[in-house]
Amino acid sequence: MGKVVVFGEVMLRLSTQEHLRFSQADKLNVTYGGGEANVAISLSNFGVDTKIVSRFPHNDIGDACLKSIKKFGVDTSHVLMGGKRLGIYFLETGADQRGSKVVYDRDDSSFATIKPGMINWEEVFKDADWFHWSGLSAAIAEDPTLVLAEAVNAAYAKGITISCDINLRANLWNYGKTPNDVLPPLIKMCDVIFGNEYDAEQAMGIDVGENIRGKFTNESFVSSSKMVMEKYPNIKKIVTTRRGNINASHNTLRGLMFNGQELFETSTYEITHIVDRVGGGDAFTAGVIYGLLDHSKIVQDTLNFAVAASSFKHTIMGDANMVSVDEVEEYMKEN
Amino acid sequence: MGKVVVFGEVMLRLSTQEHLRFSQADKLNVTYGGGEANVAISLSNFGVDTKIVSRFPHNDIGDACLKSIKKFGVDTSHVLMGGKRLGIYFLETGADQRGSKVVYDRDDSSFATIKPGMINWEEVFKDADWFHWSGLSAAIAEDPTLVLAEAVNAAYAKGITISCDINLRANLWNYGKTPNDVLPPLIKMCDVIFGNEYDAEQAMGIDVGENIRGKFTNESFVSSSKMVMEKYPNIKKIVTTRRGNINASHNTLRGLMFNGQELFETSTYEITHIVDRVGGGDAFTAGVIYGLLDHSKIVQDTLNFAVAASSFKHTIMGDANMVSVDEVEEYMKEN
Amino acid sequence: MGKVVVFGEVMLRLSTQEHLRFSQADKLNVTYGGGEANVAISLSNFGVDTKIVSRFPHNDIGDACLKSIKKFGVDTSHVLMGGKRLGIYFLETGADQRGSKVVYDRDDSSFATIKPGMINWEEVFKDADWFHWSGLSAAIAEDPTLVLAEAVNAAYAKGITISCDINLRANLWNYGKTPNDVLPPLIKMCDVIFGNEYDAEQAMGIDVGENIRGKFTNESFVSSSKMVMEKYPNIKKIVTTRRGNINASHNTLRGLMFNGQELFETSTYEITHIVDRVGGGDAFTAGVIYGLLDHSKIVQDTLNFAVAASSFKHTIMGDANMVSVDEVEEYMKEN
Amino acid sequence: MGKVVVFGEVMLRLSTQEHLRFSQADKLNVTYGGGEANVAISLSNFGVDTKIVSRFPHNDIGDACLKSIKKFGVDTSHVLMGGKRLGIYFLETGADQRGSKVVYDRDDSSFATIKPGMINWEEVFKDADWFHWSGLSAAIAEDPTLVLAEAVNAAYAKGITISCDINLRANLWNYGKTPNDVLPPLIKMCDVIFGNEYDAEQAMGIDVGENIRGKFTNESFVSSSKMVMEKYPNIKKIVTTRRGNINASHNTLRGLMFNGQELFETSTYEITHIVDRVGGGDAFTAGVIYGLLDHSKIVQDTLNFAVAASSFKHTIMGDANMVSVDEVEEYMKEN
Amino acid sequence: MGKVVVFGEVMLRLSTQEHLRFSQADKLNVTYGGGEANVAISLSNFGVDTKIVSRFPHNDIGDACLKSIKKFGVDTSHVLMGGKRLGIYFLETGADQRGSKVVYDRDDSSFATIKPGMINWEEVFKDADWFHWSGLSAAIAEDPTLVLAEAVNAAYAKGITISCDINLRANLWNYGKTPNDVLPPLIKMCDVIFGNEYDAEQAMGIDVGENIRGKFTNESFVSSSKMVMEKYPNIKKIVTTRRGNINASHNTLRGLMFNGQELFETSTYEITHIVDRVGGGDAFTAGVIYGLLDHSKIVQDTLNFAVAASSFKHTIMGDANMVSVDEVEEYMKEN
Amino acid sequence: MGKVVVFGEVMLRLSTQEHLRFSQADKLNVTYGGGEANVAISLSNFGVDTKIVSRFPHNDIGDACLKSIKKFGVDTSHVLMGGKRLGIYFLETGADQRGSKVVYDRDDSSFATIKPGMINWEEVFKDADWFHWSGLSAAIAEDPTLVLAEAVNAAYAKGITISCDINLRANLWNYGKTPNDVLPPLIKMCDVIFGNEYDAEQAMGIDVGENIRGKFTNESFVSSSKMVMEKYPNIKKIVTTRRGNINASHNTLRGLMFNGQELFETSTYEITHIVDRVGGGDAFTAGVIYGLLDHSKIVQDTLNFAVAASSFKHTIMGDANMVSVDEVEEYMKEN
Repeated sequence: MGKVVVFGEVMLRLSTQEHLRFSQADKLNVTYGGGEANVAISLSNFGVDTKIVSRFPHNDIGDACLKSIKKFGVDTSHVLMGGKRLGIYFLETGADQRGSKVVYDRDDSSFATIKPGMINWEEVFKDADWFHWSGLSAAIAEDPTLVLAEAVNAAYAKGITISCDINLRANLWNYGKTPNDVLPPLIKMCDVIFGNEYDAEQAMGIDVGENIRGKFTNESFVSSSKMVMEKYPNIKKIVTTRRGNINASHNTLRGLMFNGQELFETSTYEITHIVDRVGGGDAFTAGVIYGLLDHSKIVQDTLNFAVAASSFKHTIMGDANMVSVDEVEEYMKEN
Repeated sequence: MGKVVVFGEVMLRLSTQEHLRFSQADKLNVTYGGGEANVAISLSNFGVDTKIVSRFPHNDIGDACLKSIKKFGVDTSHVLMGGKRLGIYFLETGADQRGSKVVYDRDDSSFATIKPGMINWEEVFKDADWFHWSGLSAAIAEDPTLVLAEAVNAAYAKGITISCDINLRANLWNYGKTPNDVLPPLIKMCDVIFGNEYDAEQAMGIDVGENIRGKFTNESFVSSSKMVMEKYPNIKKIVTTRRGNINASHNTLRGLMFNGQELFETSTYEITHIVDRVGGGDAFTAGVIYGLLDHSKIVQDTLNFAVAASSFKHTIMGDANMVSVDEVEEYMKEN
Repeated sequence: MGKVVVFGEVMLRLSTQEHLRFSQADKLNVTYGGGEANVAISLSNFGVDTKIVSRFPHNDIGDACLKSIKKFGVDTSHVLMGGKRLGIYFLETGADQRGSKVVYDRDDSSFATIKPGMINWEEVFKDADWFHWSGLSAAIAEDPTLVLAEAVNAAYAKGITISCDINLRANLWNYGKTPNDVLPPLIKMCDVIFGNEYDAEQAMGIDVGENIRGKFTNESFVSSSKMVMEKYPNIKKIVTTRRGNINASHNTLRGLMFNGQELFETSTYEITHIVDRVGGGDAFTAGVIYGLLDHSKIVQDTLNFAVAASSFKHTIMGDANMVSVDEVEEYMKEN
Repeated sequence: MGKVVVFGEVMLRLSTQEHLRFSQADKLNVTYGGGEANVAISLSNFGVDTKIVSRFPHNDIGDACLKSIKKFGVDTSHVLMGGKRLGIYFLETGADQRGSKVVYDRDDSSFATIKPGMINWEEVFKDADWFHWSGLSAAIAEDPTLVLAEAVNAAYAKGITISCDINLRANLWNYGKTPNDVLPPLIKMCDVIFGNEYDAEQAMGIDVGENIRGKFTNESFVSSSKMVMEKYPNIKKIVTTRRGNINASHNTLRGLMFNGQELFETSTYEITHIVDRVGGGDAFTAGVIYGLLDHSKIVQDTLNFAVAASSFKHTIMGDANMVSVDEVEEYMKEN
Repeated sequence: MGKVVVFGEVMLRLSTQEHLRFSQADKLNVTYGGGEANVAISLSNFGVDTKIVSRFPHNDIGDACLKSIKKFGVDTSHVLMGGKRLGIYFLETGADQRGSKVVYDRDDSSFATIKPGMINWEEVFKDADWFHWSGLSAAIAEDPTLVLAEAVNAAYAKGITISCDINLRANLWNYGKTPNDVLPPLIKMCDVIFGNEYDAEQAMGIDVGENIRGKFTNESFVSSSKMVMEKYPNIKKIVTTRRGNINASHNTLRGLMFNGQELFETSTYEITHIVDRVGGGDAFTAGVIYGLLDHSKIVQDTLNFAVAASSFKHTIMGDANMVSVDEVEEYMKEN
Repeated sequence: MGKVVVFGEVMLRLSTQEHLRFSQADKLNVTYGGGEANVAISLSNFGVDTKIVSRFPHNDIGDACLKSIKKFGVDTSHVLMGGKRLGIYFLETGADQRGSKVVYDRDDSSFATIKPGMINWEEVFKDADWFHWSGLSAAIAEDPTLVLAEAVNAAYAKGITISCDINLRANLWNYGKTPNDVLPPLIKMCDVIFGNEYDAEQAMGIDVGENIRGKFTNESFVSSSKMVMEKYPNIKKIVTTRRGNINASHNTLRGLMFNGQELFETSTYEITHIVDRVGGGDAFTAGVIYGLLDHSKIVQDTLNFAVAASSFKHTIMGDANMVSVDEVEEYMKEN
């Protein structure tokens, strides 16, 4: 398999231990994560060659972040060191009735202040087969959005497969633009989309209509996916998960993939003793990309693999999935 | 809302980490708690002005206890510093089949050796709207019972609303008196009682009869509550929870409130991944008091709020509930 | 009750904290355990006099292991100090979908290099009433198997009750022998066997036939047990557990005992929030031995006690069960 | 003694454990501190009534910060909740040859974005006897400097004693102003200055001349202090410490105070096993203020007390000094 | 060598981690210790057979204490289980300028409420060669003093060697008796005394005179020791340490022993990075007893061994010395 | 600068926390280290391109080890995954009087069972400028010695600079060969030797004579170094450190380098509060190699840099030095 390149922000995550509330914590666990980095690390743990393009501050915190990614063998040679700070998110790990709580402190991060022209995309994509990005990079500020556009254009020009995780977050998008303002031209160049009925309307400029809006059935997914594919003919696959949130320790998970003709779906996984839910979606994304990179794999297997990998992630501390292909496959066999 | 005053003992709680048994533990977690203090801290976290009256030893442990309460903004200006020790309870946190285990070491505590006349209740209640006490203060020794009687009388004389959590504990009441010996005259002055059919018989001197004894149905609660209100006409509301103890990690919880005419009840909450059950009842009590202080709130809402707050408490380490009104309300909305 | 002697290896267990994966762990929890030692410690916690015969290296790790067993009052006066290392097993504690993972590093341990003649079995069994061993001791190498044979012969000669936990492990038995090569003559001298249909075929040299093979019903257990007892007339009881592995945090457990005439079985225990599953079987074994030592106990009570004790073990960190008889009985009463 | 009011920023401090480097740390200790808050907490621990004026964000981190200060009984009723973030500093605790390392991430903090008019200084100073501020508040941005000026003017107008810790930090003062641009008019209103020869030149607009510049002798201190007092006739005392930095674990400390006529100095303290050096200067400041508040205390005793308190601080984790007057005095007696 | 029996209280020690102050601690380290137990454990680590006689409560804390002693192979078969609580002491570990701080909470412990007649001393001393006790057992209450007298008398009657560590503590002796009231008749039966000039006057009823009082020179030790031996002719050796307290992290240590004719002394040990000073004296005592038990050892070697062992103790967490004879001897060789 | 290749074993290090003894530890810190890996990581932290050649087991422990090295950017593409175990060493961190204690458990490690022919040295050295090895690789077993010889020959053939740290360890060399049997032919090809008078005699086959043997003066170092260079004319520099071991927390350090004509020496560094002494020598080695790679650097500066870097290492937990060139240089400037 070829190299997978991702572009996105990495943040310092400071999480409370043993389900303590913020006001009780006198120690915080330190990890580093970000949607796209999580995908890269997970793929790297699957044995795939990966590279991350990002920007960290040139200080000890940026250096520690860099080392935390190098550890997994992700190529960091195109991470820029500059800007003034690493974005932070504080995570209070919930339990049972009490949901996890996030306090963001990410403004003016090194990534948010990246400028067009800083990255030599020609160089970045030299040995790449796949480029993965997410809507998060367009949600922070104008400049990273422009850099993202450079990346997508460069990848498209080179004929690299492009995947996008729409990943809308209500508490971002504060710089005056909406997803529908900036994402459609980028989505046009993508091959694989991680998104659902809501994303179609919010980020892909499609009016799904009353019959679909607010529904999250298999039928509504197929219908909205067809509209998406009609508008964006380059898209070959649309993928999503359906999550049931019974409580902060117990979720259910199911995967859906539409390839233009057929809908594939997995059975529903019960995840009853969640250790860390953050990054569950990224683990799914990595699973899908892994499966699609292996052209011998049939679609259903890819989807099953991705949901199994994601459900496995919920048992692992930190943002990124620490699981090998063997472990996922053994787990699938046991179930 | 006015100030809520509580009176009661605060103990040093030393609990094992990560479900270890006492004989395995080489570290213990330190928190401080007591039924009434838990109510005060929880109310303080709801934004209510609170004051605690208690007695701690004049040493570093007493000082640490004092600071642990000040932290939450509870007024500690009427905490006496004296006596020789802070009562201790050792807590082995259970899991699943294994219930939590408590070893008490609370004899001769500063609170147990408080003497009548030590507290200037006139001063204490100057700005108070509500006084909350519990049966625990009468269960330890003669002297604290006498001080409690001073308090209840003073509050009653000033027309302050009085609530009492009966809170019977089999392993206390070793000084020669029974609840029925000492509590009835104090209950007579109360407006709100936290107690059930069993408490009616054990602490309020009522023979509930064969049809009610040992039953814990809605009907038995209404019947016994009516008997209580007949005997104690000052009581306006009787409140209780019904807890189902599936195992040490999984409980169910439901609230009941009788106002003389009508029975209010909540749905049953499933609490499936308990972090710390201690103080669940106090969190409920605080929720009820919070609701009743807000005269615009209807009774059903108050009860729902209290059970939601209590179920939230089960996810929080330590005796006291660390939750804001916003968090409880958001949680209720999600369910 | 008389003294129970066990013979077997004890290993250093290094386990990750808070469900971390090996590659995330920068601290490991240290405990010491082994199937037979677990039985001895559990019995010691039940108040039974116990003695362990084993071999630890004469260094600080061996010494720490020795102290960890002495702590529970197990007589260690017949533990030899010699050889070059204590066997190690690394344990990654799973959760939910992710099973626990063990990495063994036990070759050439002090126990594996024990030699015949090193132990004075006459002395060991002087005050013994019961001898317990397991198939693990025969699975490692030739020499410990020979020493085990010395032990079983000596115990049999002295008329001591002998129990054996077959305890087959696929990843052991690498020295050229199979269980069926070496265990039958030792099993012949046993009174109580912990084993099932699979063990009958793999370790007791019995062809159970197509109707039983792969089945794990009550009927298949009775049928295979009858075959075992026919071949090994000294055996009085065959005991086993049936475990349902819903996920790494949720198991079910049920006990079966056949005494030649009658099958006894327990209800199925749900263990929904497992803290540490390792040693669950040893806790069951200890429960059965405890019950059988008490001749006033009826068989059904013994089996119930053993399953309750085992289910209790799942809530306790480390290999050995830390529970008293009172605690098990109180737990049984509550259920 | 009357109430001491302080105004200044409080930051979240995230420090590595056990002397780990940032890139090794997977846990960080959480405390909250700031020069002026440290003075207030230390004074509060001495039994002095204190109040802090500051601005924290209205989120869980701001709330935790608030509670960490309330814990010590400092009046926080004039802390504003607003702005978007709490400033952070990361601290790598050095040892021996390796100095401690700080990474600041404090831009755009709630304090840095405070605006003139937000604080009702009339209300703040109603019951105040002393106001303490530091140069740090003027080093961050224009707005806090304006608010600081409001405070100093209001305090001066009310005849409150004013102290200032010059506290120059090379890595601050990035908003286009120098200390000499903004501090002199504020210093003019002060009674007590914590500063030395360097500060006279950098922050008080005085050309100390070649004979003094770069010297740090008793003589140079007296000479420069005389120049300061000539220029700022309201100043009654100038105080400073001389620190010898043998290594990160071993410092020496000595105090100097000039009252216009006489120089007071302490003996040199050896601090040989430093636990946490941060806040050592603030502990000294608190000691001086405590001594000066007690008008019965002679100057030499005040200075001795302050250096003893500061040297004590070096043994205490966190920014603020956790020591009572009794403890300092007992320690002085022993030496 | 024969068995050494000790009699004395064992307490739960709860100490702060990483030099935190009590008010900062949210975790406490758990160990168990007491002067006489420390001697027994240290001797046990030297390979000597030891037995402890004491009284612990019959609850989980008492059980954990028992196991903590069993771990080191000390015979606990004569520990009584009864009474209501284990005495506690809270330890704040000092550093540098800040001395360690102890808060006692030991009243009404199981040991303090032991009664005469509870112990079968005949049985206890059956296989004993040496009995060690300390003044601590007589300092708590009348009853333990009476039990101590039983022990000393029984040991004396059997001709067992008796040693006593005077061990005066100002904060004990609150039950109406002074050391001089109760210790002299017990000291009369002793062979070896651990005590100095001060102890002679306070606990052995000797007026040492102006020339000796308050002096702690070699000469004053010899003079007072001669007076002691004159009054108590059974005493063969008087032993003590001289400690220089430079700060809480740096002490000096020297040993003195007088045998009636000659004074033996060691060189002065510098202990520059103290980990835990508690139990340093008990480690010295154990060293002396170990040396005297080995009749081949010359007195000077015994004293050197004891001081080396004690200085080693200062590097070890907890009350008891964890060091083997080999380690002490190697350390002596290196110095 | 070109790439530095190292070859050597990496072990799992399990060390006690907070100076605990092995028998007290219930947690162990996990790091990975080995002399040559430490050099590579330190150089990598200096910004040098490095590569490690080694062999780790193909299991989770080997994988965690691999990641721990990748983290620092060391090229691990030539680490073989095979064999059955990672060597282990247990480290009890001493303090003050008590030296650190190591228990090795390294037999039959993956590295010890590496076979000639397994490594493609041609490939390894393709982009290398420097090869560093140590005597440790020849001390374990025959096979690694043969592989080492392959490496040295290949490097020599390609004209790569070769350095060797003699690094004799008494407790190794148990396979029947002595250093003098196997090292001389390899040393013959080296350019830089880390060794002293003792190494000359034990590992380089030189009889240094009575005047030098056992002396460790500047003169003896120069004399023995001259003998070494005479016998091995390829050697250009001989380097060593002189360490003074005052106690486990306090050492002194000085560097010496002889270049055939001149002796260079540094001043003596006092290291008074050691955090972790392991790897101090490897940090020195890395410092020397770093200086020599930079041909603009004069020898004295290189030596000063190396001793400063080494003394810095003593403040850092783990085997490898975590320090940048800037940090060392700033530290040198401050001193």
